[in-house]
Amino acid sequence: MYTKKYLLSTLKEKPKNIESISHQLMLRSGMIRMLSSGIYTWLPTGYRIIKKITKIISSILNNHGCMEICMPIIQPENLWKKSGRKKLYGEELIKITDRRNKKYVLSPTHEEAINYICQQEIHSYKQLPITFYQIQKKFRDEIRPRFGVIRTIEFLMKDAYSFHINKDSLKKTYENMKNIYIKIFKKLKLNFKIVKAHSKIMGGSISDEFHAISEMGENKIIFLKKSNYAFNYNEFNEKKKKFKNYLLQKEKKLIKKNSIEIGHIFQIEKKYSKNTNFYIQDKKNKKKLLNMGCYGIGINRIISSIIEQNHDKYGIIWPNCIAPFQVFILPINMYKNKKIKKIAKKLYKKLINKNIDVLFDNRNESLGKMFADMNLIGIPFGILISKNTITSKKVELYSRKKNSKKKVLYSKIISIIKNKII
Amino acid sequence: MYTKKYLLSTLKEKPKNIESISHQLMLRSGMIRMLSSGIYTWLPTGYRIIKKITKIISSILNNHGCMEICMPIIQPENLWKKSGRKKLYGEELIKITDRRNKKYVLSPTHEEAINYICQQEIHSYKQLPITFYQIQKKFRDEIRPRFGVIRTIEFLMKDAYSFHINKDSLKKTYENMKNIYIKIFKKLKLNFKIVKAHSKIMGGSISDEFHAISEMGENKIIFLKKSNYAFNYNEFNEKKKKFKNYLLQKEKKLIKKNSIEIGHIFQIEKKYSKNTNFYIQDKKNKKKLLNMGCYGIGINRIISSIIEQNHDKYGIIWPNCIAPFQVFILPINMYKNKKIKKIAKKLYKKLINKNIDVLFDNRNESLGKMFADMNLIGIPFGILISKNTITSKKVELYSRKKNSKKKVLYSKIISIIKNKII
Repeated sequence: MYTKKYLLSTLKEKPKNIESISHQLMLRSGMIRMLSSGIYTWLPTGYRIIKKITKIISSILNNHGCMEICMPIIQPENLWKKSGRKKLYGEELIKITDRRNKKYVLSPTHEEAINYICQQEIHSYKQLPITFYQIQKKFRDEIRPRFGVIRTIEFLMKDAYSFHINKDSLKKTYENMKNIYIKIFKKLKLNFKIVKAHSKIMGGSISDEFHAISEMGENKIIFLKKSNYAFNYNEFNEKKKKFKNYLLQKEKKLIKKNSIEIGHIFQIEKKYSKNTNFYIQDKKNKKKLLNMGCYGIGINRIISSIIEQNHDKYGIIWPNCIAPFQVFILPINMYKNKKIKKIAKKLYKKLINKNIDVLFDNRNESLGKMFADMNLIGIPFGILISKNTITSKKVELYSRKKNSKKKVLYSKIISIIKNKII
Repeated sequence: MYTKKYLLSTLKEKPKNIESISHQLMLRSGMIRMLSSGIYTWLPTGYRIIKKITKIISSILNNHGCMEICMPIIQPENLWKKSGRKKLYGEELIKITDRRNKKYVLSPTHEEAINYICQQEIHSYKQLPITFYQIQKKFRDEIRPRFGVIRTIEFLMKDAYSFHINKDSLKKTYENMKNIYIKIFKKLKLNFKIVKAHSKIMGGSISDEFHAISEMGENKIIFLKKSNYAFNYNEFNEKKKKFKNYLLQKEKKLIKKNSIEIGHIFQIEKKYSKNTNFYIQDKKNKKKLLNMGCYGIGINRIISSIIEQNHDKYGIIWPNCIAPFQVFILPINMYKNKKIKKIAKKLYKKLINKNIDVLFDNRNESLGKMFADMNLIGIPFGILISKNTITSKKVELYSRKKNSKKKVLYSKIISIIKNKII
């Protein structure tokens, strides 16, 4: 992609009255724009990142036998009355009335819908356990939209649902999904902790939250440095006595941090199968209410968290696997020097042929302006081509993370980059 | 994928009171299920097809320099009042009021939103022409949902928008997009015609529709066999005199068919830039209202049309590139014969390693039941492994399109299938 044919939409100045650094950088790097409070458009740079993250999540879930489906956003209100959640969600639930006066809700989550579907499609214990997922928009009439895409009215979720003949099977899939989440968040280079949580509105007894460590997070958690697990700070204080034997001995080593909730998994058990009489016969021909698990990841929140954890004064520093582009090419004074242009275009074609996402900055701007933009949007590697280097058949390889350059023979640059990225 | 771990959800019996064959086959093959009138869930088999189609469309659009974005589904009502389309759409527009009494609409299309965004992001004629697209759900309070996913309340669209400094540039991109559409529909093996149309609610003067030939279509078109173009039949009759010179000479050769509208492209010109005062300075520093083009494809309708055009009494016959699976493996009596099981699993692994989508039917069912399901969901090729063939180191290769089998050495089957698919 050439910058001249791309909508960069970077902002030089910091937007005013923006609370969090990730929100600031998402605006400045041209990832998102607000259409209305809590409602955002994803511009090309932002949407490239969404596509890469959803592809990673899908691929890991598919490899573990989860099946992708797509459930409706508009759902009949009666499903939500039946489950009792119309009342529980209250004003957060967005309601619609059609021209025939039929009432619907805009789904904030899909437990009712997946139960409705599975009750028709699952007839035998032999089909179980089974896990479905989808990646699509959800809706919530947020009382106070804030922090950019972290607390919004319209947002992107990965939600998954599993069904089981008994609790043991549910527990097994639940633990499996916990490990899948760890795999996903590690792949995305997130610094995160797992926090024992309460199911609340969702139903069921056991649930775990996944929290990304971040100063601007609305949660407070407490943990030991090397542990994968953490506690909600308030709860920890309330129940301090319970933890006496183990944690309080180490209290001085406990770390307290703010965090952003990026995932939540639940052992819902029989809440929804009970209110819909969703029975299946087990091996011994006994009628059993199905057990259910549900598993959510906030895609928007992952993106904000990654930025909160990976930035410097110049902008965002994306992990290689989700950067909007993996490499930028920056030819210095290419419009005055034909040789620079020729080398730059040759390298561009070679990288494209290796299926590497490249942004070629072909604007007729100063080096400073172009370099600042590439740093702001956070491309992991850059190739700088200038009069000084080409005399010795070299280019400069820039690393965004190290913020340093080194000279490399341009016969070797492609293989070096390929090794770094894959 | 193994059938035992997959949600096949095929129906043996024809569902009752279903008007169209594509709707019937989508239900029977376990692609979709209705949640409410005009509102459908895509089950795993259906969603696999959606993913393949959207990937093909994205890849062709990206290669032509179009940029993918994602605009909000929920949009402030005032944008729609300003454009005048709140009134024009009338009851078809789905409305929302939030807890603060703020009013929104659920987008049936995104002209207002893209204009709002571009007015902030496009400042120079040097950024033009520029084309954006998205693939996401749209909403319409359909007075009479019908024909399965053809006329629905919630549906999947590819919508694209281009901006231009003048009409000539718009025309050029419009013709380019017409060719892109031809490329897309040909890739999807659709039998289609291009029909001169009216822009109506969308605005602008010039527009072309893309129609898939289908008996159950709600439109009637008339055309010459070899032409890419057709006329709306009613319009043709009304304006018969106009066509005297050219078409009427050939009237006997004219073919009249029903059709499904699957795409519509518009030269919107200045309608939206006018009502939002969206000006840009041209090369000569003259203030110009922007010209706009917009381009839609109904993803759901493409799927229905492909099925209408590609089926037989056994079920759907998918083109290779969008089939939910490309190959099925059907081991006959594998639970009684270890050698059959071993060969089947070996072939499965080999195909997976070649990145081919395979469905391994490992159910303990009769050959008839298993074969009927594979034919119903329309997988292009099948490998049948039986006691009779393995004695001569062979398997049977089944072609869904030809509905015929031939014996092939199992040392050669992988390369034969690879050649047929790619």
